Amino acid sequence: MLSASQQKFLTALQVKKYRQKYHKFTVEGSKLVLELLAQKRISVSAIYGLERWQEENAAAVAAFNSIFTPVSEAGLKKISALTTPNAVLAVAEMPETPDTGLPLGGSTAFYLDGIRDPGNMGAILRIADWFGFPAVYCSPDCADAYNQKVVQASMGAVFRVPVQEIAFADLLSANPGWPALGAVLDGENLFETELPAEGLLVIGSEGSGISPAVETQLTRRLTIPRGEGGGAESLNASVAAGILAAFMAGRAKKPAF
Amino acid sequence: MLSASQQKFLTALQVKKYRQKYHKFTVEGSKLVLELLAQKRISVSAIYGLERWQEENAAAVAAFNSIFTPVSEAGLKKISALTTPNAVLAVAEMPETPDTGLPLGGSTAFYLDGIRDPGNMGAILRIADWFGFPAVYCSPDCADAYNQKVVQASMGAVFRVPVQEIAFADLLSANPGWPALGAVLDGENLFETELPAEGLLVIGSEGSGISPAVETQLTRRLTIPRGEGGGAESLNASVAAGILAAFMAGRAKKPAF
Repeated sequence: MLSASQQKFLTALQVKKYRQKYHKFTVEGSKLVLELLAQKRISVSAIYGLERWQEENAAAVAAFNSIFTPVSEAGLKKISALTTPNAVLAVAEMPETPDTGLPLGGSTAFYLDGIRDPGNMGAILRIADWFGFPAVYCSPDCADAYNQKVVQASMGAVFRVPVQEIAFADLLSANPGWPALGAVLDGENLFETELPAEGLLVIGSEGSGISPAVETQLTRRLTIPRGEGGGAESLNASVAAGILAAFMAGRAKKPAF
Repeated sequence: MLSASQQKFLTALQVKKYRQKYHKFTVEGSKLVLELLAQKRISVSAIYGLERWQEENAAAVAAFNSIFTPVSEAGLKKISALTTPNAVLAVAEMPETPDTGLPLGGSTAFYLDGIRDPGNMGAILRIADWFGFPAVYCSPDCADAYNQKVVQASMGAVFRVPVQEIAFADLLSANPGWPALGAVLDGENLFETELPAEGLLVIGSEGSGISPAVETQLTRRLTIPRGEGGGAESLNASVAAGILAAFMAGRAKKPAF
């Protein structure tokens, strides 16, 4: 059974202010919670689930039985942020992050400048996870990576990829010589330019792209060229991030046209 | 002023069944409606907007004044599918599409096999629009392209890119010799293979990828290789679509590793 204070605490974690106060966030749904339990980077502090779910996943949950609280379908509905709650909700500890840049020698990572859509944020975390990037850096006006919708859209990538809020200038000064490659609409043709072996890929916001203050600090400005007869004003931010990441990963130098 | 029957008709268009019955769909928000008015492919049958919006956009709206109905903020709220209605709602005519394949000589297009998320569908339409693909083909279980959320996420691409529901086998038999390249998890390394000049890019559903029936008909199976240390199970469907489209557009043959 859930006490009123537990309920209050769990629903408070749907709000960024309280996530930051308690350094905790919630993870919902069987698939995502099982991914959370299967990894070591993020600690789990509590699990609230249906007894049926616990039984069906006995092996995976065994090590966590001491922090498992059985709840009813009705109880789950009271603490869930989902329209249709799915069997289980876990409380996870936000990882600590350093203040100025993780060690980055010879790596490629993202800097997100004002990405506000939780779906984009989650999809970009998946890209970073897929390509094995060591981190995703965010400007202070990005969506919170521990927002429930981002966690869902990340499909668990947020458990594996360190996310750090940091001003662009601070990140660059902590990592001298690291090339900063921005996705812009009027830069070098991505299909025809030679890419460095590693670099910081800078992705601007959905509405207005890379902010002027960040753009002046870019090492290079890259453009995914619009096709002949192409009409769209821009690509979705996470799609652009994926294309840049794939070209860096494939280091597709001078394709043979 | 809006009559009760107009209200009923407009809210009915939020449902696929009625969009198909009337061959119409709604477009909301100032930016998107202005894009609708600026193009010729899709006909506009009615506009419901604030008088202030009509005045502010007098030049763009001039040719449509005869189909403009002024509404109050309260009236707009009654017909809008958005939580925060934005100045104007237009009713557009669904374009007619042929029954079996548009003319496709020498082109690259998408086939979407069960894409159900409106955000992904919209983002993929933007990709097709950006790269100038002549069409997006969909299996019958895809999200409806004229769903309000898809229209929003497409940022107007749906006005420009023809979308057609068609069974995969029918599309292939109408276009003999067209290579069908599927995005799968265990195919040829996209970064190391030679791509054809054009082809049908097949993108599977968010949950289960390309369906077995479609997969057996693929000409080639391509994989975006996971990076060293990469952890994600997969990429978001629209991100994968963007990467494939960009590699086709750039025809990045044998990148120099």
